[in-house]
Amino acid sequence: MIPPTPGFAFRVVARDGHARRAWLDTPHGPVETPTFMPVGTQGSVKTLSPDEVASTGARIVLGNTYHLMLRPGAETIAGLGGLHAFSRWPHAMLTDSGGFQAYSLSAAALKASLVEAAEEGFSFKSHLDGSAHKLTPEDAVRTQALIGADIQMQLDECPPGDSPRAVVERAVARTTRWARRALAVPRPERQALFGIVQGGCFADLRRAHADELGALPFDGLALGGFSVGEPIERMHETVCEVAPSLDPERPRYLMGVGTPRDLVVAIGAGVDMFDCVLPTRNARNGQAFTRGGRVVIKQAQWRTDPRPIDESCACACCRGGYSRAYLRHLYVAGEMLCLRLLSLHNLHWYGELVAGARAAIQESRYSQWAARTLAAMQDAPDAPP
Amino acid sequence: MIPPTPGFAFRVVARDGHARRAWLDTPHGPVETPTFMPVGTQGSVKTLSPDEVASTGARIVLGNTYHLMLRPGAETIAGLGGLHAFSRWPHAMLTDSGGFQAYSLSAAALKASLVEAAEEGFSFKSHLDGSAHKLTPEDAVRTQALIGADIQMQLDECPPGDSPRAVVERAVARTTRWARRALAVPRPERQALFGIVQGGCFADLRRAHADELGALPFDGLALGGFSVGEPIERMHETVCEVAPSLDPERPRYLMGVGTPRDLVVAIGAGVDMFDCVLPTRNARNGQAFTRGGRVVIKQAQWRTDPRPIDESCACACCRGGYSRAYLRHLYVAGEMLCLRLLSLHNLHWYGELVAGARAAIQESRYSQWAARTLAAMQDAPDAPP
Repeated sequence: MIPPTPGFAFRVVARDGHARRAWLDTPHGPVETPTFMPVGTQGSVKTLSPDEVASTGARIVLGNTYHLMLRPGAETIAGLGGLHAFSRWPHAMLTDSGGFQAYSLSAAALKASLVEAAEEGFSFKSHLDGSAHKLTPEDAVRTQALIGADIQMQLDECPPGDSPRAVVERAVARTTRWARRALAVPRPERQALFGIVQGGCFADLRRAHADELGALPFDGLALGGFSVGEPIERMHETVCEVAPSLDPERPRYLMGVGTPRDLVVAIGAGVDMFDCVLPTRNARNGQAFTRGGRVVIKQAQWRTDPRPIDESCACACCRGGYSRAYLRHLYVAGEMLCLRLLSLHNLHWYGELVAGARAAIQESRYSQWAARTLAAMQDAPDAPP
Repeated sequence: MIPPTPGFAFRVVARDGHARRAWLDTPHGPVETPTFMPVGTQGSVKTLSPDEVASTGARIVLGNTYHLMLRPGAETIAGLGGLHAFSRWPHAMLTDSGGFQAYSLSAAALKASLVEAAEEGFSFKSHLDGSAHKLTPEDAVRTQALIGADIQMQLDECPPGDSPRAVVERAVARTTRWARRALAVPRPERQALFGIVQGGCFADLRRAHADELGALPFDGLALGGFSVGEPIERMHETVCEVAPSLDPERPRYLMGVGTPRDLVVAIGAGVDMFDCVLPTRNARNGQAFTRGGRVVIKQAQWRTDPRPIDESCACACCRGGYSRAYLRHLYVAGEMLCLRLLSLHNLHWYGELVAGARAAIQESRYSQWAARTLAAMQDAPDAPP
């Protein structure tokens, strides 16, 4: 039993198979899990106000350290009271380490296929202005300390989804060394730190890494390195094999995942926390999630349709009487209000999904709920491929 | 005395010099005047929800017939219950005739300097797809009837601001003929129609036209053809000379105007209603109105500034604790939330301006209030040129 960081507690209140319902207490209030964290990459969940984000049921959001350290800068945020005060989000907040974006965005900006990590850490060029930066495990902790979220993530090395076993083994070993270095850096009081389990789709490597990191005094354990190019079914298999072996006393976070189906599968395997840009990014592309599948709002079939996106939805978009016809008009006309309303709807839809999962776990009917929810998605005429 | 359209009434409740405070009753509730109408060109006040628009004090908005007839189409809007139901705006609404945009946007699309109006009406090509359309005085009434706003505007001919007297005279005469044709078309019950006084900056032509249209059974009278290229001081002079000669028993609307200074001057001359894209367009360009002048939010000077846009402002942006530093960050990072918050702030600022004018008129101190308000704008270090 690892003593938690002051201000934090994790209490499992119901179990159903591997799935569990829990409370994660943080210095900025409690979070019911399983939970979905909307992504506020640059200190704003795109298009939405903090009130609107909270109206979707979210009580924790994610900020991206890579983006925030480059602009407006971690010290600027610290000088303005930290990211909570800066962005007016009163509930819990988690930041990633910045490593994943330093690796992927910087590589894209350099038109290189890979930014090699050295043992010391990442050296990368900003995708904004090409300026040179480095990010070591220690830097990641210090930068996240300045940003001031409730939960920090360690710097990890995340190999591509198709990496051979030897490459994955080296990344796992390095991530463990970086975990120890991260834990050795003093953090502000009341700021938690999660470790990140790597291992690709090699379940034995994942399990061994889970044990290794589980022995360290992290406040939570994440599964990183999924949804990085591997087939979805392999991801599902590996998550189902590995999640149950993560210390059951601590929150489990599946990073950067995923679709509604991914969430239903992973919650069944005992995962507690998720983040993904999918609901907000799809909204900005004019796609709305509904119980009957995705609605692509620009389609001509909605031109005169008076129905809301989802008649059974209680979000401000659907309750507010905005018709598919009006939303289509706004989208085609390039009006931002459409992107706001669809973002709100999609995050509310994710909020309802995890609330449904929590209720089902509480009432010991998770597998029936999951089967029904997955079947509804597959039956939908415009289900995701 | 012209009998008003059912559902409408206009009661002047206080006078101070030429300025007046009044109530305009409409089928969608009362509007206190002087009032500013936010512009919802395509059925949405850009970036904002109807609730947010109403929170700025606005109780009437303007829709653009030209844009709405082309997309989504007036019949589509009618089939969905009219623009109130379609766009979820519960308060009063006015539509322009479409003539001004048919003239200016179509000319721009055709790369022509001018679209000639024939006696029958305008023939124009859509700026969206080049399709051919016509807009006669009768079409404008029928199209606006389908869109279903509370107040319609007649089709008028608006010559450029530098037109010679003979051109302006011909436009005035044609606008009068079009006024009679518009009034001859049956309108839905409870839909008012305003006439439009032309005459450029020739005060004698304006006064004669005001008398001519004042003899017709319009529910209100507008001053069109201002802010179309003439010097601002000439516009102010002409408005001050002409507005008092518009029938005092009916609402007076200065179309497409203007800056805060324009409003203060024109209210002093007895104008009741205004519309302009300035507050929302400036917001999207990162400019905020304050009592101390404009704040250009992208400027580096705000990088670490913890103050709100305007410490004395009660809008959701300023009251919500959003700092100049945060707003600057959002603007520079391309986050839509910034454009929402600045739009809200600017419309609130206009709402406060007209509320201040109403209070000053009520208390017989309009000229002092106007002098102080104008002086504050001129003293500001970054006052508009």
